Amino acid sequence: DKDLYSDDDIAGIVTGLAWTQVGGEILLIESSLSRGKGVLTLSGQLGDVMKESAITALSYLKAHADDLGIDYRIFNNYDLHVHVPAGAVPKDGPSAGITMVTSMASIYTQRKVRPFVAMTGEVTLRGKVLPVGGIKEKILAANRAGVREIILCSKNRKDIEEINPAYVKDLTFHYADTVDQVLAISLLPNQVSRPLKFILPEEKPEPAMSQS
Amino acid sequence: DKDLYSDDDIAGIVTGLAWTQVGGEILLIESSLSRGKGVLTLSGQLGDVMKESAITALSYLKAHADDLGIDYRIFNNYDLHVHVPAGAVPKDGPSAGITMVTSMASIYTQRKVRPFVAMTGEVTLRGKVLPVGGIKEKILAANRAGVREIILCSKNRKDIEEINPAYVKDLTFHYADTVDQVLAISLLPNQVSRPLKFILPEEKPEPAMSQS
Amino acid sequence: DKDLYSDDDIAGIVTGLAWTQVGGEILLIESSLSRGKGVLTLSGQLGDVMKESAITALSYLKAHADDLGIDYRIFNNYDLHVHVPAGAVPKDGPSAGITMVTSMASIYTQRKVRPFVAMTGEVTLRGKVLPVGGIKEKILAANRAGVREIILCSKNRKDIEEINPAYVKDLTFHYADTVDQVLAISLLPNQVSRPLKFILPEEKPEPAMSQS
Amino acid sequence: DKDLYSDDDIAGIVTGLAWTQVGGEILLIESSLSRGKGVLTLSGQLGDVMKESAITALSYLKAHADDLGIDYRIFNNYDLHVHVPAGAVPKDGPSAGITMVTSMASIYTQRKVRPFVAMTGEVTLRGKVLPVGGIKEKILAANRAGVREIILCSKNRKDIEEINPAYVKDLTFHYADTVDQVLAISLLPNQVSRPLKFILPEEKPEPAMSQS
Amino acid sequence: DKDLYSDDDIAGIVTGLAWTQVGGEILLIESSLSRGKGVLTLSGQLGDVMKESAITALSYLKAHADDLGIDYRIFNNYDLHVHVPAGAVPKDGPSAGITMVTSMASIYTQRKVRPFVAMTGEVTLRGKVLPVGGIKEKILAANRAGVREIILCSKNRKDIEEINPAYVKDLTFHYADTVDQVLAISLLPNQVSRPLKFILPEEKPEPAMSQS
Amino acid sequence: DKDLYSDDDIAGIVTGLAWTQVGGEILLIESSLSRGKGVLTLSGQLGDVMKESAITALSYLKAHADDLGIDYRIFNNYDLHVHVPAGAVPKDGPSAGITMVTSMASIYTQRKVRPFVAMTGEVTLRGKVLPVGGIKEKILAANRAGVREIILCSKNRKDIEEINPAYVKDLTFHYADTVDQVLAISLLPNQVSRPLKFILPEEKPEPAMSQS
Ligand SMILES: [Ca+2]
Ligand SMILES: [Ca+2]
Ligand SMILES: [Ca+2]
Ligand SMILES: [Ca+2]
Ligand SMILES: [Ca+2]
Ligand SMILES: [Ca+2]
Ligand SMILES: [Ca+2]
Ligand SMILES: [Ca+2]
Ligand SMILES: [Ca+2]
Ligand SMILES: [Ca+2]
Ligand SMILES: [Ca+2]
Ligand SMILES: [Ca+2]
Repeated sequence: DKDLYSDDDIAGIVTGLAWTQVGGEILLIESSLSRGKGVLTLSGQLGDVMKESAITALSYLKAHADDLGIDYRIFNNYDLHVHVPAGAVPKDGPSAGITMVTSMASIYTQRKVRPFVAMTGEVTLRGKVLPVGGIKEKILAANRAGVREIILCSKNRKDIEEINPAYVKDLTFHYADTVDQVLAISLLPNQVSRPLKFILPEEKPEPAMSQS
Repeated sequence: DKDLYSDDDIAGIVTGLAWTQVGGEILLIESSLSRGKGVLTLSGQLGDVMKESAITALSYLKAHADDLGIDYRIFNNYDLHVHVPAGAVPKDGPSAGITMVTSMASIYTQRKVRPFVAMTGEVTLRGKVLPVGGIKEKILAANRAGVREIILCSKNRKDIEEINPAYVKDLTFHYADTVDQVLAISLLPNQVSRPLKFILPEEKPEPAMSQS
Repeated sequence: DKDLYSDDDIAGIVTGLAWTQVGGEILLIESSLSRGKGVLTLSGQLGDVMKESAITALSYLKAHADDLGIDYRIFNNYDLHVHVPAGAVPKDGPSAGITMVTSMASIYTQRKVRPFVAMTGEVTLRGKVLPVGGIKEKILAANRAGVREIILCSKNRKDIEEINPAYVKDLTFHYADTVDQVLAISLLPNQVSRPLKFILPEEKPEPAMSQS
Repeated sequence: DKDLYSDDDIAGIVTGLAWTQVGGEILLIESSLSRGKGVLTLSGQLGDVMKESAITALSYLKAHADDLGIDYRIFNNYDLHVHVPAGAVPKDGPSAGITMVTSMASIYTQRKVRPFVAMTGEVTLRGKVLPVGGIKEKILAANRAGVREIILCSKNRKDIEEINPAYVKDLTFHYADTVDQVLAISLLPNQVSRPLKFILPEEKPEPAMSQS
Repeated sequence: DKDLYSDDDIAGIVTGLAWTQVGGEILLIESSLSRGKGVLTLSGQLGDVMKESAITALSYLKAHADDLGIDYRIFNNYDLHVHVPAGAVPKDGPSAGITMVTSMASIYTQRKVRPFVAMTGEVTLRGKVLPVGGIKEKILAANRAGVREIILCSKNRKDIEEINPAYVKDLTFHYADTVDQVLAISLLPNQVSRPLKFILPEEKPEPAMSQS
Repeated sequence: DKDLYSDDDIAGIVTGLAWTQVGGEILLIESSLSRGKGVLTLSGQLGDVMKESAITALSYLKAHADDLGIDYRIFNNYDLHVHVPAGAVPKDGPSAGITMVTSMASIYTQRKVRPFVAMTGEVTLRGKVLPVGGIKEKILAANRAGVREIILCSKNRKDIEEINPAYVKDLTFHYADTVDQVLAISLLPNQVSRPLKFILPEEKPEPAMSQS
């Protein structure tokens, strides 16, 4: 798909890799924010495991908002929608976890997603990256789609080493154990050229704020 | 149906094209707004995929309200109802996506919908238009119904080229890759003659507004 | 049922016509309002399609409150209950649509319902009336029940013309294409003799009201 | 059950008559109020139809609160619980309708329920009483339980006339067409000896109250 | 279980008797309160009937808070959790009713539960105690567990009289017809040694309080 | 898994022991807090029993917040997410109870979890620890994973004594009857090196606070 990265100046669009009964496939994760009350909407016929994966990714971001420079008030004053086209194709499994967290981190920071990168890996709540299956099929699909760099869990390195080198010679692999390492690769430091301007209310002036 | 476009001075009524087991069919999407709190109601025996399609269309509009000149407060101060007659016929699938987004854009802007146009195509959250199936059957149905112009995804152009030219000689085709392009065709610049006057509260006066 | 119209000085009671496996039947729609927050309750073992029909009828009324002289605040300060006896009989389908909208319009305006009228027809969100099935059986049931006038969709006129004239000679038929036309026939101009006195809060005084 | 009416100084306890596969049975309806926000709780393994019957009864009372001298604020400041022992026995059907409405009217007015009365009949939202089945079996059960008076729909009179007079000679029958008539028989004019003292907030002082 | 009553200085822990396919069993009901908004949580794989039993017990307590000296504000300012170990064993039926109401009464009053007592019986909303089944098996289980006193419905007296006296010679039986009578036996007059100190907001100062 | 305890400076990560059809397994429980309104989210394909176990653990902590030095306002001003990787593996049963309560206690107190410890045991609402099954298989799994200390219910001591001493010679066992005893072992007295700084609102200044 030659226009896979044509939208690389839009925050929140990230390329994942899925494994289906008919082989590997490209899976785009789209995130968008609109003014609201912090509601999360998931669409694209996502199964239970994939929904939990998205919820876990969002909890991770909320708990690490400071590290990523995300103003905490955005979570409560904007609604997040995560959609995974194509809309009629059921999708499930935890392997889109790092793609989800990258998409959400991009939309909340308005930072650009590195172009020509694809990724696959489960995330846990504390930010560990876990290995996933179907690596060979996913890599072949990435190759066909013009992907140039792949982010994987370190524990999937052995799966790459088992693939015929001819198929991977044009690909650069990044191995990660944590979400921190994933985001260091997957997000560019600069924002998109027309970043969303967040409108945030002042915190209600409390008589006093205490730290427990 | 000779009175298909008799209501062309009402915002929110858009003609889609559906593909059923017995061939192509005209599918009208009706949107209406009433004062409320931003609740979305979907009716017409819509399946899961079609509901997600409507939710995705609405999120797209919310995230691009400025571009369309929609006052953001309308989303939170009016309830949106989208109905797809006939009420007893189950409907599903993502192909009504661009029809949904046109209907919603019309009702929120109160702009007129271009008469004698029908459309079919999936939308994604960032506003891409994806190709859909059943094109031949849909075109025949549009023809029978007096439609004069059709909006489709660019990737459906090949499906049109395979149709016997005799069937499409009276039709004008518009190919789109993005929702922007769809709306540029499907909406007229002027509002309906009796546009809804939105009653909107002032934003609560904040002690200060900050931009993150 | 000789006392079918004995309650004609109560707002919100309207006679519909249903089609069941054992023939046509009279179907009473009852609406009632009580002070609340705008909650809609539907009862009488209504199926999904009939529930959506009621919700669509209510959205239509909300969007056209001004035309009917309904104070918009009533929708948010009163709860609406629509019940369809008999309580143990499952009912479904869209054909009670115009009966629903008449019942609701009567209860919100406190206008009397025209006595000895029955009706059947689907409504859409913009207020179109669509044709329904089982017309012959419904007419026979209306006749037996002492109904004198029938409201139908114009597209059901052909179904009436196919009925043996002996069965319809005592009936007056009104054909409608829109909810406007239905209500012009089904509601009397005057209110019931003991109309509900609505207690409505003043709108919260806004610093300013803007129209978008 | 000799102590069936031993609690006749407690508001909200009313004797209904049910029809089960093994014959007629006494069915006690218990209502209780506690300070809250107007939540309705139904228990006793009630089926859908019986739940709707309870909801309809409550809507009737709310819409006719003035006629019964019920302060409207009670509905919003007290939670209502309706329980039908025995807790493990599934129950369904609309025939407990007038028993429900009597139980609720008693608890909201704190008026005593007439002792040695039992009743069966469906209610509609506008307060009509509809006939129900299983009359013979219900009457036999009432007789066995020491009931002295029975309230029924007028249209069930023929069912009573078909019963062997020996079985009904000790019973007085009251036939009703409306809830008004039912309550005139089933409730005594005086309150229970220790009536609940309702604690009600003043209505929020509005800048102005308008009547539409 | 020798430590069955080792926690007798903790409010809210009460011993019930259950009847399973493999005989009678001890069933502990645990209640706990934490600051909140009056939410009720039930756990321990409770079936529908047992859940309704708990809800009915709570409604009884709320309606009789004054009699038990419970400050009404506790219900709205504390969340109640009722758990029935073991967590993986499904439980159902109404016979834990009086155990539930004792457990809740203990936690809301912080009064001690009488040690070495077990109980079984259904409760109704007005506070009647109904007889339950499996009495013989339950008594044997109580005996084995070191229970010394049993609370039962008066109507279960005949079931006790049918048991071989050798099995019940060490047990004292209390027969009750009402929840009042149950609590008079099951709760001690004094509070636990470290009673929960309830933190309660002042009632919002109303301009005036009216009694209807 | 050599890096099982590499994250021992992160609060809320605790090692449990699970029993599956293919033997014992390590089960990590991850808890995280983010600013919110006290919502609990559970993920990792947890079954009903395991969810109730988590809810019971949280209620225990809330009721014993003072004993653990947890500021009560944290419960209402932070959302808690508990995740159990791997995300696609269904998990159920009550045996993760003490692992859940340790994980939650760690995240709310920000105290470190003792490294090289694993645990298994059901908790009840009052804080009792109940024995669980599959002990032998769980111990073998713990041994393989480099666990050095195990926390169990006292009633599981007999299961340990039946295991071949060769398999347990490198393990230290801690037997507990209460959650208090579990937490005394499982949590270290000091906080993690970068503890979460809780931002808490002052309690709304009440006109007066009363203790009932
Ligand atoms: Ca599933
Ligand atoms: Ca993926
Ligand atoms: Ca589906
Ligand atoms: Ca379409
Ligand atoms: Ca259906
Ligand atoms: Ca009808
Ligand atoms: Ca049902
Ligand atoms: Ca009854
Ligand atoms: Ca059940
Ligand atoms: Ca019991
Ligand atoms: Ca289950
Ligand atoms: Ca465990």
